Amino acid sequence: MRKVLLTGASGFIGRQCLPFLHERGFSVHAVSRHAPADHDPASGTTWHATDLRDPDAVARLLEEVAPTHLLHFAWIATPGVYWTSLENLDWVRASLDLLKRFEQHGGQRVVMAGTCAEYEWGSGVFHETRSPLVPATTYGQSKNHLRGLLETFARRTETSAAWGRIFFVHGPHEPHARLVASVARALLRGQNVACTHGRQVRDFLHAEDVASAFVALLDSDVTGAVNIGSGRGVTLGEVIHGLADRLDARALVQLGARECPADEVATLVADVGRLTHEVGWKPAFTLDEALDRTLASWQDELAREQAPCD
Amino acid sequence: MRKVLLTGASGFIGRQCLPFLHERGFSVHAVSRHAPADHDPASGTTWHATDLRDPDAVARLLEEVAPTHLLHFAWIATPGVYWTSLENLDWVRASLDLLKRFEQHGGQRVVMAGTCAEYEWGSGVFHETRSPLVPATTYGQSKNHLRGLLETFARRTETSAAWGRIFFVHGPHEPHARLVASVARALLRGQNVACTHGRQVRDFLHAEDVASAFVALLDSDVTGAVNIGSGRGVTLGEVIHGLADRLDARALVQLGARECPADEVATLVADVGRLTHEVGWKPAFTLDEALDRTLASWQDELAREQAPCD
Repeated sequence: MRKVLLTGASGFIGRQCLPFLHERGFSVHAVSRHAPADHDPASGTTWHATDLRDPDAVARLLEEVAPTHLLHFAWIATPGVYWTSLENLDWVRASLDLLKRFEQHGGQRVVMAGTCAEYEWGSGVFHETRSPLVPATTYGQSKNHLRGLLETFARRTETSAAWGRIFFVHGPHEPHARLVASVARALLRGQNVACTHGRQVRDFLHAEDVASAFVALLDSDVTGAVNIGSGRGVTLGEVIHGLADRLDARALVQLGARECPADEVATLVADVGRLTHEVGWKPAFTLDEALDRTLASWQDELAREQAPCD
Repeated sequence: MRKVLLTGASGFIGRQCLPFLHERGFSVHAVSRHAPADHDPASGTTWHATDLRDPDAVARLLEEVAPTHLLHFAWIATPGVYWTSLENLDWVRASLDLLKRFEQHGGQRVVMAGTCAEYEWGSGVFHETRSPLVPATTYGQSKNHLRGLLETFARRTETSAAWGRIFFVHGPHEPHARLVASVARALLRGQNVACTHGRQVRDFLHAEDVASAFVALLDSDVTGAVNIGSGRGVTLGEVIHGLADRLDARALVQLGARECPADEVATLVADVGRLTHEVGWKPAFTLDEALDRTLASWQDELAREQAPCD
């Protein structure tokens, strides 16, 4: 029986993996620091409330679950903080510990979440092995070193390992301070949105698509780094106007009202050759469908926030 | 008061650091898995028997000692095994943990032991920043990732950090299976020594000199990677004949009797610009003096081994 341990399972992307894992027939064990309050016991997911930075707890969890597969998202993700926090190093340590225990208890296949911040952020389309890996941030450096250590580990064991490099993501449960969430929420409330010039080109996927790509990668025998993106660049202005136009609210958008950081990169797009041809995955949603979906989820969320408690 | 925690303190190089640390006025706390049986309580060194791979033990030790300085040698060193062992990853984990606790309890200056195996072993003279870092072995990869993580850590804290890249070392307590130890011991016992062609060029220092270089680096404010070598290449044949000639035993040396591994690198020499000019260190011993010293120490050791127990 295939049994997966999903870490960061109540997070922005992790939570979206659950249906895809069930669909592919995995027995699912989900880990987060606190099991979610609204968990449906009939869902077939077994929840574990574990702080993965505690080595004794990791040892106990992996002995108890003994998963064949590991899908690892847990990491520091506090907006604004995670780029520079020393907690990134705690997560390198915790991830090595988790990997070791996974293998000790019969683990076979592992996929971990990486980031486009591992690349040297010149401008352009990034390829997994041809683009230089010279990360500028604590977050990117820590992820990049963990990736290297995972490769070292895989070379010396029977473990099959892949590394999904996430580009830009939007969808429900996105931290409110991040771009798409903050713009969508402001527009839905009729507030003005002060933006930078908006000409930056980025590669966006809906969180459901990112999750489905990770589960497809887990269920493949592809090893090494794989970009998780759409392969298509879109300007931030197009995304922001796309959200505004759906609400007939373009007048609220003030492109150019905020200064752009001096080190802002013009273009960050994923080369998706490996994801498309080796993993055999493609997104379920076009950009338009993805924006529809994201806007609808924030609409629901705001309606719930505004509903009187009864 | 300057208080140093020395890890791997009963090891080949670590043990040689003790007098140099005392000389420079450090209060010395030495860690090894087992405190040495022959420890002299009047030496002024406080010994701690700690397995640094145990996070709870590390937390307790660093809280108790609260050192200002950390000189970190502890690592897997089993000859023949350490190049490929997964234990290398345990030591990455343990070293990150140690570093975190060190900083939490007021640590200011850390030096860790790296290796020339971090470099891409093309042939030549290796420079800290100009030579490519593409390690081929589990050992070299693990050390190289730890070095990168140490740099990331230092950038985000007040900790000053340096990394000494060790080249080739001989001296007392060298593991018997390694080149100089095995040749010296065989020659002293009048045994034939089957060698490869001996034309490989390497950069050797006596273990005392390596230790003195590390202590000088610790006591400087130089940061980043620093090669620990002599800067002078010597062929293995010269070293082996040097040992043999001291015993008038050149006839025992059979150069060319053993096949050279296909991937054996012709030349591995340290660029010692940083060590010489920035740290301001130079070796106490010439190659001849170093070989004299090493041979004398093995002579003493064999005499002790052969002495009847009384």
